[in-house]
Amino acid sequence: MSAVDVPVALLGYGTVGSAVHRLLDEGADEIERSTGHRLRVVRALVRDPARERRHGAPEGLLTDDFALIRDDSDVGLVAEVMGGLEPTGSYVLELLRRGTPVVTANKQLVARSGPELFAAAAEGGVQLRFEASVCAAIPVIKLLRESLVVTNVHRVLGIVNGTTNFVLGEMEAGRGYADALVEAQRLGFAEADPTEDVTGLDAAAKMAILATVAFGTRVPVDWIEVSGIDAVRDEHVAAARALDMRVKLVGEAVLVDDRVGVRVQPAFVDAHHPLAAVEGAFNAVMLQGDAIRELTLEGPGAGGLETASAVVADMVSVLGTGSGGFLSRDPVWRSLERLPAGELPSPHYLRLEVEDRAGVLARLAQELANEGVSVARLVQQPGDGHAVLHVVTHEAPAGRVQAALQAIRALPEARRRAAALPVVSSRGVAELGWA
Amino acid sequence: MSAVDVPVALLGYGTVGSAVHRLLDEGADEIERSTGHRLRVVRALVRDPARERRHGAPEGLLTDDFALIRDDSDVGLVAEVMGGLEPTGSYVLELLRRGTPVVTANKQLVARSGPELFAAAAEGGVQLRFEASVCAAIPVIKLLRESLVVTNVHRVLGIVNGTTNFVLGEMEAGRGYADALVEAQRLGFAEADPTEDVTGLDAAAKMAILATVAFGTRVPVDWIEVSGIDAVRDEHVAAARALDMRVKLVGEAVLVDDRVGVRVQPAFVDAHHPLAAVEGAFNAVMLQGDAIRELTLEGPGAGGLETASAVVADMVSVLGTGSGGFLSRDPVWRSLERLPAGELPSPHYLRLEVEDRAGVLARLAQELANEGVSVARLVQQPGDGHAVLHVVTHEAPAGRVQAALQAIRALPEARRRAAALPVVSSRGVAELGWA
Repeated sequence: MSAVDVPVALLGYGTVGSAVHRLLDEGADEIERSTGHRLRVVRALVRDPARERRHGAPEGLLTDDFALIRDDSDVGLVAEVMGGLEPTGSYVLELLRRGTPVVTANKQLVARSGPELFAAAAEGGVQLRFEASVCAAIPVIKLLRESLVVTNVHRVLGIVNGTTNFVLGEMEAGRGYADALVEAQRLGFAEADPTEDVTGLDAAAKMAILATVAFGTRVPVDWIEVSGIDAVRDEHVAAARALDMRVKLVGEAVLVDDRVGVRVQPAFVDAHHPLAAVEGAFNAVMLQGDAIRELTLEGPGAGGLETASAVVADMVSVLGTGSGGFLSRDPVWRSLERLPAGELPSPHYLRLEVEDRAGVLARLAQELANEGVSVARLVQQPGDGHAVLHVVTHEAPAGRVQAALQAIRALPEARRRAAALPVVSSRGVAELGWA
Repeated sequence: MSAVDVPVALLGYGTVGSAVHRLLDEGADEIERSTGHRLRVVRALVRDPARERRHGAPEGLLTDDFALIRDDSDVGLVAEVMGGLEPTGSYVLELLRRGTPVVTANKQLVARSGPELFAAAAEGGVQLRFEASVCAAIPVIKLLRESLVVTNVHRVLGIVNGTTNFVLGEMEAGRGYADALVEAQRLGFAEADPTEDVTGLDAAAKMAILATVAFGTRVPVDWIEVSGIDAVRDEHVAAARALDMRVKLVGEAVLVDDRVGVRVQPAFVDAHHPLAAVEGAFNAVMLQGDAIRELTLEGPGAGGLETASAVVADMVSVLGTGSGGFLSRDPVWRSLERLPAGELPSPHYLRLEVEDRAGVLARLAQELANEGVSVARLVQQPGDGHAVLHVVTHEAPAGRVQAALQAIRALPEARRRAAALPVVSSRGVAELGWA
């Protein structure tokens, strides 16, 4: 069978774009063998073709004129690796409306404008793939859209930010937070400005995309309750260790009575849970559904080459599946409501410091009971004139736990600010020990 | 868009077959929404239609006449869930040659006859999918064939047998081997006759399929060096713990200078390696390649419903990708040679018991050096009139390690049978501690 020549254009030619170009060239034979198509990069859009030569683009490849790509009817496939919301979003929309399949690595664009782009692709009968927009080379979008069609995925748990996972790992090894962050920057895991990572906003954008695809409904980023790792203190890391848990920044998206709840928060993860084993700057996503129980995918969630490989995998899949296949259909097919903030249930860990005198424990327990929060484990440690209480609750809505915490903070016996973190465990929390 | 009606036939209607039927019925709307096709099970082949009613087949569905399915030109897709090599293999071949796409869950059939079946599918221009033949719902075949086309996967590591992983976990928790096996049987993880599992033969068949697809070459089951968990003793489990490792039955397939080496063997797995975290009867597969570094997939590797969900996912993918796509192409595209037995390299753990007298250590070290095996860590423990030596070597071909072991066994100072197990670690073995 003779190969079908497919001219390809790239929007962007930075680290990821040039790596895509290289992978396509080096893998041309493999791609032809498996798809019957020979991909050829014919054009790449950049801001200033005269300047951007550091990635060694061949003569004549670079252009600053999007119309040259849009109006070239030979171009059979476009990969968007330029980033940003505008003009990127408009370019992608124009291409889809003209019937050109697009692959994008743009997390912010898909998180904010995904549903509009999906609809445009479905109307145009072309594919829009976006694997690289979430966790780089971990193929979770493909699995959700192609393998798990009948499994009713009802929960997605993820460690979807490598920087914070690295920092928390260093804190477990004894480093302070600030020190660990500097180390992450030195190793290239964290940006010079790590705000997006440490505040949980980067993870929130990824969870919005995952929830949208998993549940088939629009999940705006501003639905997501987010708190970052900047509030994690050494004493939380130590308490987690005593409970045979680890502190992780966990994204959780759940379907509760056909309402969607999503949060990104530091959590205590049981050491026996697959997410506890995710080390360094790696990412992992666990999908829970009816027929599959749970599937966990782990791998590098960032990196130029890893991202490029996901872009290329999507390009290969576009060619390999043709049009009219299931990926020309809109993944957003229903309109579910948001689970109100605070209704997302889970066990919680609470750390409370109180004056060490008779009756205090009873008052704390009463405040928890007033909110319907029941205690699974309680460990009391003596402090310097005060007591530290470590409480693990049974499953309870986060809002009720926070309300109890507010009431406890208002007690005259309360010392320092009390804290509550959700617990992620496959086992019942009553089985937990304390070392 | 109106749905295309697709009559489907099942070969087999046992636990998996009836679960496939149920998932197709319950998920009909989801499948139509994502593929535009409406699947309808019209016929199921069984040995005795009068007897096999326990799974509640509707009137008229069951037949014992394969020709009724083969000759029905309306049947657009067949799922083979009957198992066995013959007549199953002939049936699948006939269907593929007639241009009917087939999805199979048959591990033994794909492990033994995969390349013939792949070739028939490619000639017929139809898809043959076999996700459920390896690790049930873990979608590793799909990823290898569709996502990792250009990544040059050069190593596949897997815990691909849940029974043995459960038994080894119980041994770590203090149970004896025989006791743990009985518990596995009681919980339904192990067959009444667990030979296939404990000897490693089940894992070998799965590794043959994974290696074939990952490397694009025929990998016969009899190329695989196999040893089971029946040789694992409590003292190995204890030594692994002291080294912060876990004993796992690991399948490993590697490409070394374009030759294929595959083995299934109990191994010491570093606690920081993703495979160490695989608990209970779960399975996991790690894929290592150029652009992805490593991807690990973990989930339930067995179970009727989990297997059925993989069959349904394959059926959905057949419909969603159409013909002429990349999965009509033969995944076996080259013919690589076998890496001779013993050339597969890795670090090793050695346990040696020797008489505790001067000069013994030097003689042992000399025997290792004679075979070019270099020592990374050595721990000597006093015994009752003898010494136990725990040795972790740097990477060395398994054959050289075994040769050194033979020589050591022949020494007059050697007590009891010495043992060597490969070590799986992402870190350098020189970093290992001993607790």
